Parts: sequence; structure tokens; C-alpha cells
Amino acid sequence: MRIYDIIKKKRDGGELSTEEIDFFIRGVTDGSIPDYQITALLMAIRLRGMTTRETCDFTFAVRDSGDRLDFSAIDGIRADKHSTGGVGDKTSLIVAPIVASLGVKVAKMSGRGLGHTGGTIDKLESIRGFRTTLSEEEFIAQVNGIGIAIVGQSKQFAPADKKLYALRDVTATVDSMPLIAASIMGKKLAADDDCIVLDVKTGSGSFMKTVEDSKKLARLMVDIGKGAGKKTVALITNMDRPLGYAIGNALEVKEAVETLKGQGPSDLTEVCLILAGEMLSLAGMGTPDEGKRLARRAIEDGSALAKLRELVLAQGGSPAFPEDLPEAQLSRTFCAKQSGYLRRVDAESYGVASLLLGAGRNRAEDTIDYGAGILLHKKPGDHVREGEPLATLFSNREDAFSAAESTLLAATEVGTEPPADEPLVYDIVE
Amino acid sequence: MRIYDIIKKKRDGGELSTEEIDFFIRGVTDGSIPDYQITALLMAIRLRGMTTRETCDFTFAVRDSGDRLDFSAIDGIRADKHSTGGVGDKTSLIVAPIVASLGVKVAKMSGRGLGHTGGTIDKLESIRGFRTTLSEEEFIAQVNGIGIAIVGQSKQFAPADKKLYALRDVTATVDSMPLIAASIMGKKLAADDDCIVLDVKTGSGSFMKTVEDSKKLARLMVDIGKGAGKKTVALITNMDRPLGYAIGNALEVKEAVETLKGQGPSDLTEVCLILAGEMLSLAGMGTPDEGKRLARRAIEDGSALAKLRELVLAQGGSPAFPEDLPEAQLSRTFCAKQSGYLRRVDAESYGVASLLLGAGRNRAEDTIDYGAGILLHKKPGDHVREGEPLATLFSNREDAFSAAESTLLAATEVGTEPPADEPLVYDIVE
Repeated sequence: MRIYDIIKKKRDGGELSTEEIDFFIRGVTDGSIPDYQITALLMAIRLRGMTTRETCDFTFAVRDSGDRLDFSAIDGIRADKHSTGGVGDKTSLIVAPIVASLGVKVAKMSGRGLGHTGGTIDKLESIRGFRTTLSEEEFIAQVNGIGIAIVGQSKQFAPADKKLYALRDVTATVDSMPLIAASIMGKKLAADDDCIVLDVKTGSGSFMKTVEDSKKLARLMVDIGKGAGKKTVALITNMDRPLGYAIGNALEVKEAVETLKGQGPSDLTEVCLILAGEMLSLAGMGTPDEGKRLARRAIEDGSALAKLRELVLAQGGSPAFPEDLPEAQLSRTFCAKQSGYLRRVDAESYGVASLLLGAGRNRAEDTIDYGAGILLHKKPGDHVREGEPLATLFSNREDAFSAAESTLLAATEVGTEPPADEPLVYDIVE
Repeated sequence: MRIYDIIKKKRDGGELSTEEIDFFIRGVTDGSIPDYQITALLMAIRLRGMTTRETCDFTFAVRDSGDRLDFSAIDGIRADKHSTGGVGDKTSLIVAPIVASLGVKVAKMSGRGLGHTGGTIDKLESIRGFRTTLSEEEFIAQVNGIGIAIVGQSKQFAPADKKLYALRDVTATVDSMPLIAASIMGKKLAADDDCIVLDVKTGSGSFMKTVEDSKKLARLMVDIGKGAGKKTVALITNMDRPLGYAIGNALEVKEAVETLKGQGPSDLTEVCLILAGEMLSLAGMGTPDEGKRLARRAIEDGSALAKLRELVLAQGGSPAFPEDLPEAQLSRTFCAKQSGYLRRVDAESYGVASLLLGAGRNRAEDTIDYGAGILLHKKPGDHVREGEPLATLFSNREDAFSAAESTLLAATEVGTEPPADEPLVYDIVE
């Protein structure tokens, strides 16, 4: 088999065989295929596409390119959720404890934030002492003991994806539907869950800007998950505006705690209950609506919050949590320039502003200011008066505010008419 | 300017600006753009295409990537011809002396053969003593003195093309019409001719397999030539079968000499007269038909052959030329397996067989056996009897014959009906 012939076949719109895809991913992983041939094939895939069959094979080859986890030593059904990435998306911090408190095992590998989107591992690391690296034995013992563990992905996890992503990033081949699906699912499937709920974010703050594209991606990922023998569903949720009021690591952890206390923002609470309901349903605990009712009860009776505390303590987090979450030393208030209805709070721009304040990474090697971020006081649809605070910006760097404020200014719109209602969940793909 | 944005633009089918193309070719030449980004853009160009304007800019940037020749010190009009490469194509060895003998200057840079196609420089180097490297001063002095000089391309000539070709070769992006045109014309235009006649070979033995594609390529190259201020025409000529009877370096030189004596094969003679007629016409010596008549006379009165001898002597070739051309020590006769009409003598396969006998290069670093090759005794349309010799194979390596014979066997067809007539020249693109 020659990589040249594989490139040529895809260039001409052909369908690659399972063996050809395996050969390619093996060559990417062991370095035997040079980068200049990898990128030529990636561009051909970007322009010619892949069938669902090819995408499944591609995903499985990525999954098998490194270590795979074996969760057979975990008692009970394992469920996971995965978000395609958004702004203010702290749902994992809420949904995972809810589900675990109801007896479904959550053995979770999460990622870090990049660009304007946050990552669960960064958020957890804003908790003093919290360890996001556990040995496989520790991990499995903890899941068997308290029903939940959340760790970062090891370097040996789907290494082909790491290499491919770095090359896609510099060759304008990131936005290929099959490559996105294979990247997400290849990593997800290397873990050993029974049930997967995908949260496909759509709109300004996500990688998929239209509901139509999000549905296509969701369909593809659900088909891949099922092809791998997993129970899989996907939600298409709104990411035109930030989810909840908090953006930035410690700020989001705090809001997650409030939500688990039953005092969270309504949009965030609702999305979390729906996600938890779907996970519980896949795990055999009734319909999604029945799962949602169970989830609501786990908040109301305090068991979900207790599970989060258990998780934090088990992974070395501070006993004073959440009172001792880091706070930024400096803050600024961002106020309305006119009176009227708040019409637009652009998710992507608010994510970028939060990054500028120190809450995110521009490059993978950047360090994070855990206290930095943005706390919204108003959401789209609210009526505001000129001079009224719309948000508070937090940072430890005085020089960070100016660029962040300019970004918010262009991303915020107040008008005489209230904005059109936007659904929180556009669709569920089964 | 960022290469990422250029890749993205072409990926989306956009038209690159002159500045963007210049930036890319500069980055290819100076090594500042990594190979993996170059190949991603090449694949995007292969799949999205380039407009004539982009292709012209691309060509001019390739031309300007290295040294350019200055022929202003040459007196008189300079004309050149260029073939896209074929099997048994020794037309340059015939046409260049004809044209030079009629007073038009031929300051020619030629290439080497690769794969199944031959190259003029290899053929000239089969002449004992012939030097294909001259200093620029020697070169210009010789053209001013005897009207003709033929040398190989220096390494400093269009270096971007060398780099791009090597990457295209391993990423299935060779067969892009605009990239082919830019590669050929970029090198051609780095020389300083007034008139260019392009011989676009079409059919099995050439890179363009259909007349339609050949016409498109011819149109594009003529537009590029004119865009650079050169008088340019292109002929579309048949390369389904070898041109003439000889394939292989010294064998072809010998056939060129016979043709200049007026004793050449009719197909080869006719193509050469048409090519010479077009060159003379572009150089201001009447219509193409008038040019063709002049060319015929230059053969009949011996002046063209005398010019070839002058060229050989001027560049250090043996005074005993052509009697001392190298000959292979071994030969085999390839005979008809049945009686009937010879229907097919597949040019590409005969080129490959000649290469296997030692006449060509599989890789650029391979050495050439100048006496090796194939001499046809019959051409398509001839009636043959079972056991009658169809061709003689020449080589210095006993072990080379078997594979060459198998190749010829599959590429030769004898049947009861004569083959359909094929035109020698399909079209002329002005």
C-alpha cells in the first residue's frame, strides 16, 4: 500500500477502504508518512469529504492509535457527556455529580480550553489542590468508591489526533465535518463508556455556526458512537450567547456550585437537567423526562452538591472549597452606553475578552489566571438603563482590561426592541 | 500576509491576488513556508483550479524565482520550441538546425528525460564529446557565431519549480492543468526568446491523454506566453504511437540525421516541417506554409544537416559524428505473433520498455545507456506476417530484455482490420 495512491484516490473523490484509512493513521502515528503527504490528504478530505463509513473507520483508527482505557473493573453502567466547546459552558461540573449521585458511574476524561472556549480540566484546576492526573488504578478505585472521577487526557491517548490537529490547524483544514467528528469521537471512544451524550454547541461561540451544520455533525457523531457499540445521543444547544452568567475558571466553578444548590441561572440549570436526563435515560433509568425529574430531585435534596464535594476531596481539593476559590485582585465594571433592551451578548467575543483577561490560552503553552473572567449581570432580553452595569471584568493584570473592554463594546448591543426568543435546545439527535 | 489565509482562500475557491502568489512562490524558494503548508495549497489548487490570471502570475513568479537569462547581446530574432514530452520525440534535433540554417537564432535550453519520456539533453550527450554546459558568454558567442546553441538548464533556473515538482510528485498533484502550464512556461520564460512554438503531445505516451485536455493546456500556455510578451503558438500532436521509428538516445540522433538528409520517416518529417514552419512564421518569415516550404528546402539543399554538424563541432562533439554514435552490444528481435494489420504500438509502454533496456531514468540519479533503445520496423497500419520482425531491442545488459519484451507484448496488437487513421496534428492554438 502506498500513501500516494491513497491521496490520489481521495483527490478523485473515491471512498477509502478500511485498510487504507488504517494504513494512513498508523503512518501518522509512527511518523512513517511525512507531514507534506498528510496535509495533502487532509486537504483532499476537506474538499472531497468522507462517507459515514469512512468517518467511522477514521475515528476507530484514531481511537486505536494509542492507549485505550479498560473500564471493565468498574461496577455498573458508565455514562459520559461531551461538549463540542463553548463560552461559559460549565455543564460537566454540574451534570457529572448529578448523574453520579443517582448511581450511574462517571469515569470522565476531559480536555483543556483553547482559544475562546474553556475546558473542564482548567476549571477543576482552579480548585486549590485538585489533582487532574490519577493513575489508572486510583481512577478506577475512585469511580468504584464514590461513583465519579474526572481527569485530563494522557499524552498516550489518541496520539494520531494530536498530530493531525496540529497540521490541520496550520493548513486551514480544521473545519471539515468528518475530521471534526473523528477527532472528538476518536478521543471519546478511547475511554470505555457505555453511554455517551454529546452536547453540540451551535452559534457564535462554538465551532459550528449554523444549526444545520450542527445537526449534520451531531448525526455523524451519533452514528459513529453507535457504530462503536455505544448508546449515543446528541443535543444541539444554543451558543450564540454565553451559558449562565459566569465566564472564566473559578467564576464558573462558583456558578456550578450555585446551580447545584438550586440557585443557578435558569438557562444553565435547564440545559444541565436535560443533559443529565438523557444520560440517565441511556443508562436505563427511564425516559429522558423521567431522568430529568430524577436530576431535579438530586439538586433539590442536596445529593448532587454533596457528590461534587466528595469528588473534590477525593482528588485532593481543598476542604475549604468552595469558599477559597481564587479571586482576581482587580475588577472593572462594564456599563450600558444607552437604555433599552439588551439584544446581543456575542458568545465568541465574550470568550475572547475572558481570554484577554487571563482566563484562557491563546497558545497551548500559555498559563491561566484562574480568578480572571467575566461575570454578566444582564442577559439578552433584559431591559437595561444607560450607565447600569452589564458585566464585571476580573483580572490580575491592570493592562488587560482595555482590550477586553473594547472587545465587549463591539460584542454588546442595546436597542429599542427586545431580541427574538432563541431556543435553548434546538434538537435532539438519536 | 499569512500562508494560512492564502490556503484558506484557495480552499474556498477564491482567486489569489498577484501579491499572494508572489508571497507563496518566494516562501517556497527561500524555504520559509514549510512543505506541509505548500502541499495543502497544491492540493487546494489541484481541486479548486486557478484562473488564467492566477496561472500567469504563478508562472511569472516561478520564472522570477531564480536566474533569468539576458539574450539582448544576441543579434536577430530568437525562436524556441518546447515539447511537453513524448516517446521517440527527436524533433528538437531536427527543427532547431533547420530554423538556425534559415537565419533565425536558436538559443535553446533543454531538459533531461524522466520516466518513459526522453529529453533532448540526454540525446545530445549520446554524441561523443558533446558538452551541454556552456558559460553564458560561450553560449551567447556561439549563437551569434553559428546561430545555434543547445544547453541544459542550470540549477539556478526557476528553483521554485524544482521544489514544487518534487512535492507534487509525491502528493498526487502533478496533473493540475495550471500547475503543469506554470511549470513548463515558468522555465521557458526564464530564457529570453522572442518566439515560442509549443508542441503539446497528446495520447498514451504523453502527460495529456485526451485531445480536449491538450487543447486546454495549449490554450493556457499560449495565453501565458502572450501575457509575457512573447509570440506564442501551440501544436497539438499525436503521441498515441511513438514518433518515427527510433526510441533511445543514440538511435534517435541517428534518425534525426537521416531526417535532415531527407530520408526520415514521413510522420517525423511532417511534424518537424510544421514545427519549423510555425517558428519561422513567428520570426517574421511569412506564413506558416511559407515557413514550411523554406524548411523543406533547408533539408533538400543540405544546409540544415550542415548546421547540425556545425552545432556538434562547436560544442565539442566528435568530428566523426554521426558515424561513431554509441551502439549497444546486445540486441533481440521482437516478432509478430500472428499475421494481420499492426493496430497498436502503445507509445507509453514502448517508452517504458526503452527505459527498461537502459535508455531512460526511473529516478533522477539513474545513469543512461546511450546505445540502448528500440528500433521499430513496422508502424500501426502496416500489414505484418507471423514471425516477421516488428522491432529490434538494443541493450548492454542481457538481463534487461525479458521485462522489456513482456512490456512490448502487452503493448502491441495485430488484428484483421487496419486501425483507424489518426491525425498527426490535431490542432494549432494561436
